[in-house]
Amino acid sequence: MIRAGDRVVILLEDEETRLFAEVREGEVLTTHYGNLIMSSLAGMEYGSFVSLGFKGAYVLRPSFMDGILSLKRSTQIVYPKDIAFITLNLDVKDGDVVYEAGTGTGVMTSVFSRLVGSSGRVITYEKRSDFVMRARENVAALGKIERVTFFPEDIERCDEENVADSFFLDVPDPLAVMDRAVSILKGGGRICVLCPTTNQVQESIRLLGELNIVDIQMWEIMARNYKTNPDRLRPEDRMVGHTAFLIFGVKIKRRSRS
Amino acid sequence: MIRAGDRVVILLEDEETRLFAEVREGEVLTTHYGNLIMSSLAGMEYGSFVSLGFKGAYVLRPSFMDGILSLKRSTQIVYPKDIAFITLNLDVKDGDVVYEAGTGTGVMTSVFSRLVGSSGRVITYEKRSDFVMRARENVAALGKIERVTFFPEDIERCDEENVADSFFLDVPDPLAVMDRAVSILKGGGRICVLCPTTNQVQESIRLLGELNIVDIQMWEIMARNYKTNPDRLRPEDRMVGHTAFLIFGVKIKRRSRS
Amino acid sequence: MIRAGDRVVILLEDEETRLFAEVREGEVLTTHYGNLIMSSLAGMEYGSFVSLGFKGAYVLRPSFMDGILSLKRSTQIVYPKDIAFITLNLDVKDGDVVYEAGTGTGVMTSVFSRLVGSSGRVITYEKRSDFVMRARENVAALGKIERVTFFPEDIERCDEENVADSFFLDVPDPLAVMDRAVSILKGGGRICVLCPTTNQVQESIRLLGELNIVDIQMWEIMARNYKTNPDRLRPEDRMVGHTAFLIFGVKIKRRSRS
Amino acid sequence: MIRAGDRVVILLEDEETRLFAEVREGEVLTTHYGNLIMSSLAGMEYGSFVSLGFKGAYVLRPSFMDGILSLKRSTQIVYPKDIAFITLNLDVKDGDVVYEAGTGTGVMTSVFSRLVGSSGRVITYEKRSDFVMRARENVAALGKIERVTFFPEDIERCDEENVADSFFLDVPDPLAVMDRAVSILKGGGRICVLCPTTNQVQESIRLLGELNIVDIQMWEIMARNYKTNPDRLRPEDRMVGHTAFLIFGVKIKRRSRS
Repeated sequence: MIRAGDRVVILLEDEETRLFAEVREGEVLTTHYGNLIMSSLAGMEYGSFVSLGFKGAYVLRPSFMDGILSLKRSTQIVYPKDIAFITLNLDVKDGDVVYEAGTGTGVMTSVFSRLVGSSGRVITYEKRSDFVMRARENVAALGKIERVTFFPEDIERCDEENVADSFFLDVPDPLAVMDRAVSILKGGGRICVLCPTTNQVQESIRLLGELNIVDIQMWEIMARNYKTNPDRLRPEDRMVGHTAFLIFGVKIKRRSRS
Repeated sequence: MIRAGDRVVILLEDEETRLFAEVREGEVLTTHYGNLIMSSLAGMEYGSFVSLGFKGAYVLRPSFMDGILSLKRSTQIVYPKDIAFITLNLDVKDGDVVYEAGTGTGVMTSVFSRLVGSSGRVITYEKRSDFVMRARENVAALGKIERVTFFPEDIERCDEENVADSFFLDVPDPLAVMDRAVSILKGGGRICVLCPTTNQVQESIRLLGELNIVDIQMWEIMARNYKTNPDRLRPEDRMVGHTAFLIFGVKIKRRSRS
Repeated sequence: MIRAGDRVVILLEDEETRLFAEVREGEVLTTHYGNLIMSSLAGMEYGSFVSLGFKGAYVLRPSFMDGILSLKRSTQIVYPKDIAFITLNLDVKDGDVVYEAGTGTGVMTSVFSRLVGSSGRVITYEKRSDFVMRARENVAALGKIERVTFFPEDIERCDEENVADSFFLDVPDPLAVMDRAVSILKGGGRICVLCPTTNQVQESIRLLGELNIVDIQMWEIMARNYKTNPDRLRPEDRMVGHTAFLIFGVKIKRRSRS
Repeated sequence: MIRAGDRVVILLEDEETRLFAEVREGEVLTTHYGNLIMSSLAGMEYGSFVSLGFKGAYVLRPSFMDGILSLKRSTQIVYPKDIAFITLNLDVKDGDVVYEAGTGTGVMTSVFSRLVGSSGRVITYEKRSDFVMRARENVAALGKIERVTFFPEDIERCDEENVADSFFLDVPDPLAVMDRAVSILKGGGRICVLCPTTNQVQESIRLLGELNIVDIQMWEIMARNYKTNPDRLRPEDRMVGHTAFLIFGVKIKRRSRS
């Protein structure tokens, strides 16, 4: 049941317009079909249809994806197609300690905080303090902020060793802090480095190989969306061509001398 | 630290051969470098290097992905590129009730059981009882079996209504049970239907639209793997061209009459 | 050498702006760097740099692709990625007789007319007479119009049999005229049907199979463009996700009864 | 009509087996349906069905693509998806002078020789003389060998300047000969460099930019093949993930000093 204070998605009947709003006294949502008195939704079931003059709208519970799309962004966020593949390949699970640099908008921080369970921790570094402030709000809204520690500084300032089950590295210059990141990982821990360019991929792979990282893999995920008219099924005319290259590897205790 | 009874991944030094074995008295793993007495690994750190004559191997903690790849399979399993995208778009989270038909090899059952938390439930139907037996073993190994209820029968036999936060439908003939699946969903609940052919996609989308499902989206995920020689970076010559089309939608309470 | 009357491409020094113009007395091209007196280009070599105040531009010979991009269009044109693959798979060559329905903007008509040589013919049908008029202009500019016969009518009006080496079918409803198209083909002749939707592909493949067409293949071509900064190589953020599905087949004299 | 001496494609009735053979006295083709006396085909129409015991086969005219697939190869050949895109973007046409290094198996040499018309020329360099011998045979079979000049030496040995309308560069180390290749091009002429790795792409783009090449573009072509059962339409499970990156550019007379 929808309650006062809930954030909801209003999907107009055309199924193409998606609006975000809060169920609150005095809140009025303006749509191109007409206005919606938000407090009138309290007590309805999710999935209900509300009339807006001649047309209407569905009231839906925001998904995590809706949450991401409604965030105020500090930086380019990680795309959904990449988010899910990253968490699966980093093998983030109950009880894990996950390190991240940088925090950015806080999307991955939120994702990780939901996956580590009540006994897990997310430790995230971001040197831009304005980003950290906004990321805190975003993680409070989307994730489990009580499991997250924010450090408003460069990951270079962290002096931990062998503590992280996984490390997510998404900063403008990953090469500069990669040695530090690998040191923070436990033996057998996993790292993901996100790079936009092939030049950075090449250099990152080379350096990871020198830093006791094995089983290095690199993936690129392409998500293709279709128009869903069942009589005229076809892919959308335009698609996302590139977001980032995703590098994965596992830390070993020492490299063999062969 | 590695303990007796742990299952581990042995990654040979060439970084191309991956073996699965258990740390157990009397267990000997045969590799093309030489034999490994598995009990000798107890007490080592994960990520350690062990010598095997002239060459050696790394001892790694199996990831969830490793677990999937080492399963005994009853059916075609859902691919990693699709697994992660499905869970994100179904918005599976702590406390959720997830229904599934059919269970198959139990991979998605395992994935869902890890995501619903200790207060959530996964209810899975599979009419082939031989599949159910194997799926139980797989979920016991990979997931949280205490959160799962297995029904060795057709989803048509389920008479629940409005109970599921999400439904994952992956059966040979989804059209035959789609009405039942949608009834089991709560208002605002999410469904994912997995279809291998465009014919089945068209019919599924048409039927979903008649069954109070809105916000229908269809995605195809392509994952491209690269050779990771930093001096000769290039995509692999061959890639997976197709696994399945992924249809998503949200249940509403009633369809508008406009 | 550039001569009066030549059409040229003016590529501004930023390498992002591409303008089309004619070398002609009195013609002045306005650019955001300044004006260019077109007649001043006569006598220069192609590839020359001309000054435009503080900045400048390169004068290039228009390629066939430039020609296509500068056409006045009647309909959605076939994309370059598809054009080349179609002609290769239809095996269009010196001396061939190529039939086409419909003519549309005349892009494929132009392409075919260049490939059939002086002894070949292109016969093209288009029921919209306004399209035919514009297509004639386009083929005159881009192709070899003396090798082309235009029929301003539906392909159904053609009563030829067994005359075409290949047939290119690109009309809104290919099923309605497919029987006619196949009849026009010689034994061993090749057909290409261009379909935007999977529904139309399915029906076209089924009908082709009933109409003495064998070796049916279906392809989809994806062309991915990169940003060409050598220090930051990466694919473009957005790409074309879909244009059309390309079906190919070969006509046999009669179908076996097995 | 099929004549003695013709090379034909025998497509078995299952439509999956494709055999190449010559119509010649005494030639017998062994198939898994039974034997075919090749001389018996003389006088038949292309597209005819011939009986082979209980099953049969279609007799088809080999396409240029069939020809490519039946070649004896010296090197990795350029894929069809790339061939067509290259010729379109190099704008090869009647009367052109096309330079190529290296000749390799002679596939692109054949393609170019068919496109330049009777007044055009293809000049091709290949330092491995064993490749040249085989390439001659291949061009004789597939192309117009009378329009081709073969040089069994490194392109560095060529001392022409400003003569080529286009240059196709496909050698193991393109950087070593790029300066020479660009010198051979006319102002306004077009170059295509084929590179398998991103490292080579980066270096090639950088050097092309220093060598008076503008309008540099880089493309990657992905061709996706479908299973053509009209009741179960779906992409093939596996596809080609990578062949080569295709770089294109245009030569200018001199670079601006801005």
